[in-house]
Parts: sequence; structure tokens; C-alpha cells
Amino acid sequence: MSLTATQTKVHNFSAGPGILPQEVLKQAAEACINFDNMNLSLLEISHRSKNYEKVMEEARALIKELFEVGDEYEVLYLGGGASLQFAMVPYNLMREGGSAAYVSTGVWASKAIKEAKIIGTTNVIASSEDKKFTYIPKGYQIPTDADYLHITSNNTIYGTQMKSFPKSPIPMVCDMSSDIFSRKVNAKDFALIYAGAQKNMGPAGSTMVMVRKDVLGKTGRKMLSMMDYQVHIKGGSMYNTPPVFPIYVTLLTLQWLKKNGGISWIEKVNQEKADCLYNEIDRNKLFFGTVAKEDRSNMNICFLLHDVKLEPEFDKLWKEANISGIRGHRDVGGYRASTYNALPLESVKALVEVMQEFEKRFS
Amino acid sequence: MSLTATQTKVHNFSAGPGILPQEVLKQAAEACINFDNMNLSLLEISHRSKNYEKVMEEARALIKELFEVGDEYEVLYLGGGASLQFAMVPYNLMREGGSAAYVSTGVWASKAIKEAKIIGTTNVIASSEDKKFTYIPKGYQIPTDADYLHITSNNTIYGTQMKSFPKSPIPMVCDMSSDIFSRKVNAKDFALIYAGAQKNMGPAGSTMVMVRKDVLGKTGRKMLSMMDYQVHIKGGSMYNTPPVFPIYVTLLTLQWLKKNGGISWIEKVNQEKADCLYNEIDRNKLFFGTVAKEDRSNMNICFLLHDVKLEPEFDKLWKEANISGIRGHRDVGGYRASTYNALPLESVKALVEVMQEFEKRFS
Repeated sequence: MSLTATQTKVHNFSAGPGILPQEVLKQAAEACINFDNMNLSLLEISHRSKNYEKVMEEARALIKELFEVGDEYEVLYLGGGASLQFAMVPYNLMREGGSAAYVSTGVWASKAIKEAKIIGTTNVIASSEDKKFTYIPKGYQIPTDADYLHITSNNTIYGTQMKSFPKSPIPMVCDMSSDIFSRKVNAKDFALIYAGAQKNMGPAGSTMVMVRKDVLGKTGRKMLSMMDYQVHIKGGSMYNTPPVFPIYVTLLTLQWLKKNGGISWIEKVNQEKADCLYNEIDRNKLFFGTVAKEDRSNMNICFLLHDVKLEPEFDKLWKEANISGIRGHRDVGGYRASTYNALPLESVKALVEVMQEFEKRFS
Repeated sequence: MSLTATQTKVHNFSAGPGILPQEVLKQAAEACINFDNMNLSLLEISHRSKNYEKVMEEARALIKELFEVGDEYEVLYLGGGASLQFAMVPYNLMREGGSAAYVSTGVWASKAIKEAKIIGTTNVIASSEDKKFTYIPKGYQIPTDADYLHITSNNTIYGTQMKSFPKSPIPMVCDMSSDIFSRKVNAKDFALIYAGAQKNMGPAGSTMVMVRKDVLGKTGRKMLSMMDYQVHIKGGSMYNTPPVFPIYVTLLTLQWLKKNGGISWIEKVNQEKADCLYNEIDRNKLFFGTVAKEDRSNMNICFLLHDVKLEPEFDKLWKEANISGIRGHRDVGGYRASTYNALPLESVKALVEVMQEFEKRFS
């Protein structure tokens, strides 16, 4: 086994699946061999074993604890990714003959809109597509007769983030895939929050859905079981075999967050990391940020070189510093540093040093 | 880390998620720490990294190699479990106004039928429900005007298995969740084969779908993206972030199978294990098998005590022998030994010894 081998430190800025805490990775490896002192691997035990039922219970309860909500909400861990939620949200919340309101802030919001349109009347009430999604729309009117409002709190590709949320007269649904538990939010303002685990909460393979029960069961639609939140709630998030291992690693990540000080702790750390990198982007003569300053994401920090011809030189330098995953999405180009919860400040500082060294050599 | 600690050998007869090869578990643990010498965990890298794209390619190709089919088939690994396939199969194959034919051989087949009925006209053309699913229906007529025939090759709960498959005049779909790659089948007879990985092929969290492309795109239905096989095929099984780690462990398990001799090897091993245990069930005066002999499953071997009052005594004995997971499903009671591919003959012999010791003491 190479588990004990000394590893070169990699600064992992991957946009997702993204960095997880080192101690979580070690616990995950252990569970592959011997889970909970059962002398069996977590990969080969029944999800109905009492050892695993405890994992599921804790993983569900910890979401409610971190979001500070009560029993009016239920938590599910489902397979299929946030992309399946793009379909399940309208399927479960849009009434037959009803409608939904969406705010379009990027590729993921657009995909959610596309699926909702297949289910029923879907109105895009605000969009930042006019400026390539480089800002968050504000001051729009939310229709009071729609079944729900759908927003995306953070846009991974463009590096924009809603710094405050609309006051919605109708149930508000939020895709928080890329900034869940990165900062304090008033979760009770939302009827439904969902998040693919693989950006800030765990590995790929499970998606968290937290839903306020009173919004369910009103569509008049005949529901496929696996697409029906109420079926999953009734089954305690184990209507069918859940993604056992991904949920366990998510639990470990949430426990790591809680143990270290919870949301108020990580919010400060994330602010410090973002400030450190944005300050350098603004100071450094060779780089510039790509989005409206007031909408800058604290999770995905996008920046470009004024002179794109210098990219190969910059790429060489950060690769030498063991930095990984900062090439921007193909829709934006340039660079994107994802600074998810588990990324240490030390990694951001390493990137800033590279940018300063690069400026010295090439400005 | 307890990875190096000496572990007590557990004979793992779990019905699923079930036993995986020891070497696969070790490789899985390693990948949690350092995947493919990247100095990063498999849990924190992009599924778009070339290291992982290779995993996905190999995992898809190996299915076709083991099933001996050509490029008329495509392989997908999807989240959501086989239960989601209960809905996706009719959604993708049943035309608007069309119909489907189902053979009902247990709880899982019944669940598939329930979902198909939500999509359209679903006819149950044969059933063994009259005798509590203790046999496989035979000699039924398959309607030539239905869009497809759906069968379940092995019934985990009852311990029945189709020893041969119907000659179908219409596209044949098979849920092989609990006996995939346990024996030779003529895969080209099927238009679609699906299997939740967690019984014979890997851990929970991904479901394999192999489909012949010519049966797709004919429903006339407006399709939700995540429910559309053609969307996933176009995306190379990465339309959205796939269940990265479960798919990798599935690849390792398939590689283990191939390396050791493939399907023809494992079929012999599985036959030997099944013979060993069924012979004891038939010989031992205290036990009896629960299903028609000609339909006995080589994967899930169900048996009861003539005298149920002796159960606590038998339970004590097998637990002492480090045997795990042989209590029967609540619908059948008694005992069920699941003898999936990774279970060694040695474990079956350990169970037989316990049964013989039990007979000595209590008959």
C-alpha cells in the first residue's frame, strides 16, 4: 500500500469534484478496509445494517443542525447529481397547469430552466446572459402566482455569487451546489435547498436535498417513485439502496466542519482566502478579475491575463509550484481558483506568490 | 490507520451491497489517498481529468468485452440505482400509446411493473405470485405488438433464477442486478441489460446500463435530459458528474474478474459453491430449500429450518463461526446465503460445517 508513502503536497484548486480535508480522506481509506470495527469494508455491507443506518441518520441530522432548521424540513441524499434535481424540483413543485419563475445566472441555471420547461410553464424573470453571466441580476419582480422561485446561489463557471437573497413571496428553491456551508445563510427563507456534494461537502455520487414538507404533494401529477421526494422521505432516504460510500464521506466532511467551528468559522476562513487572492488580482498589473466586484464569488475566483500570450509562461510557473486545477472553464478561459472549504489559506498564499513572481519576471 | 491491523476473517454472505474481492478493497483504499500517482485522492479530482476519463472508458469497454458485444451497444454508468431504471426503461422504450410486457417474479419485478404502469400500458404476461414467487414462470406467450419484454434474471429475495431466457420476438430488457457476470449469457439476445452494481460488480452508487442503440429515440415523448439514455450516450456517460468512486471500484472488480479467467472461470466457481450448499440443504435433516429445484439461484440460496424454534441456536452457531449476513429477507424468513462472485468457496464450506455441526447437536 502506498498510504504511508510521503506525498508531494498538491495545492488542489479543482472546481469540483474538489478538495476534501486530509483527515477525511484518511478516514475514507480506512472505511474501505474496516468500517466501524466490523472487520468488513464499508463497500460490502448492507445499507440496512445498524452501523450504516447510524451514518445515514447522522448525515441527515447534521444538515439540519448546520442550517439551524427544525422538523418542518426533511433531508435526503439522492443519486443522479444536481442535474437530476433540475428535473425533480419542477416535477415535485410545479402544479399541473401551474408555473415557475427562474433567475438565469449561468450554464447550470440554464440547464435547470431547460428541464423545468419540459415539465410546465417556466418564466425566466431575470438574467445576466446579456453580459455573459458576469454579474448577478438584482431588483427584479417575483410573480406571486408562480409555484416557486428558483435561484442559483453561486455560479462555478463565471465566479459570481449572490451576496444576498431575494425576499420571495413564493416558495424559494436554491441550487447551492458550489457554495453550500461556505457562509451563513438564513435557511428558513428557503423551501428547498439542493447541492451536489462534490464541490464543498463530499465526493461525487450523492446530492443533498433539504425540503420543507408543506410544499410537497400539491402537483396533481402521477409520480414516478424515484422522482418523488415524498417517497424518499417516507423511506428515510433509503427507499432504495443509497450511494453508501459517498454519503459516508459527506458525513465525515460535515463532522470536520462542525468540529473545527462550524459555519461561522469557515465563513471567516473563506473570506480571508478570497480577500487574499482578489487583492492580488486587483494589485497585480498582469491580471484582472472577470466579474462585477460586488458579485465576486468567495468560492470560484476567476481571472484573466491582460496578455493571453503569456499564458504558457504562467502555466509553467504554477505547475512548478505544485498548483493544480486553476485553468478556467472553456466558456470563460483564463484562470479559476476554486477555494472550497477544505482548501487551506496556505494554498492561496502559494498561488499569490506565483503571481507575484510572475509579475516580477514579465511586467 | 488500522489498515495494517490483523483482521478477523468474516464470511460475508450479505445480499447486497455484497462482498467484494479483498484486493479490490485495498486498491480502493489506496485511491482514497493517492490515485494513479497524482498525489491527489480520487475523491477530490475532476471527473474530466485524463486520469479519470481513462477509468470511465475502461469501465465502459470492459462491460462490452465481458458480454462479447460490438458497437451496436453502448454502456452507461448512472446514479439513482436500479430503481431509477424501473422508470427510465419504460420512459425510453415505451412509445406514446404503446405498451410493454412484464414477467413478474418477485418484489423487484413488481416495482418495475409499478413504474411502467405510470408511463403507459403495461401487461403482466406471466407471474409466480400465486406461489409466493418460489418458481420461475415458463411457457408464456410474448405479445408481438408490445414495445418490449421486461424480465428479471435472478430474484434476490426468493432465491430463484432464470436458467434459460425466453426467445423474444420483441426487444428483451433484463434486470440482472443480482447475477450479472456470474454466468455465461448470450447478451446479444437482449436489447437492454441493467444492473445495480452493488451485488456482483462493485459498491452501491452506480448502475450499469447496456443498451442496443437501435431501440432508442422512438417514443415520441419529450424527454427530461437526465432520464434520456441518448443524452447520457452523447455525453460519454459523463453528461453530468458521474459517481466517480463507485465506478472506479466497479472497474477494479471487473478487472479482477477478467484477470482470474473471466465469466467461464467464475461460472464454474459459482456452480461449485452453489452445489456445495444446496447438497447440504438437501442432505441435512434439519433444513429444507424454499424454491422449485430447477429454478434455484446460484447467487442467493434460501433455506429454512423445519423447526423454526431452533433458529436462535443456529444463529448462535454461525455467528461464532464469523459468518455474516445469512438471515433471510423479511418476506421469506429463515436463511439466505448470497454467494456472489467475490465470495470464496472456503466461506461456503465454513457455513456447511456449521450446518453439519448443528445437525449433530440438534437432530
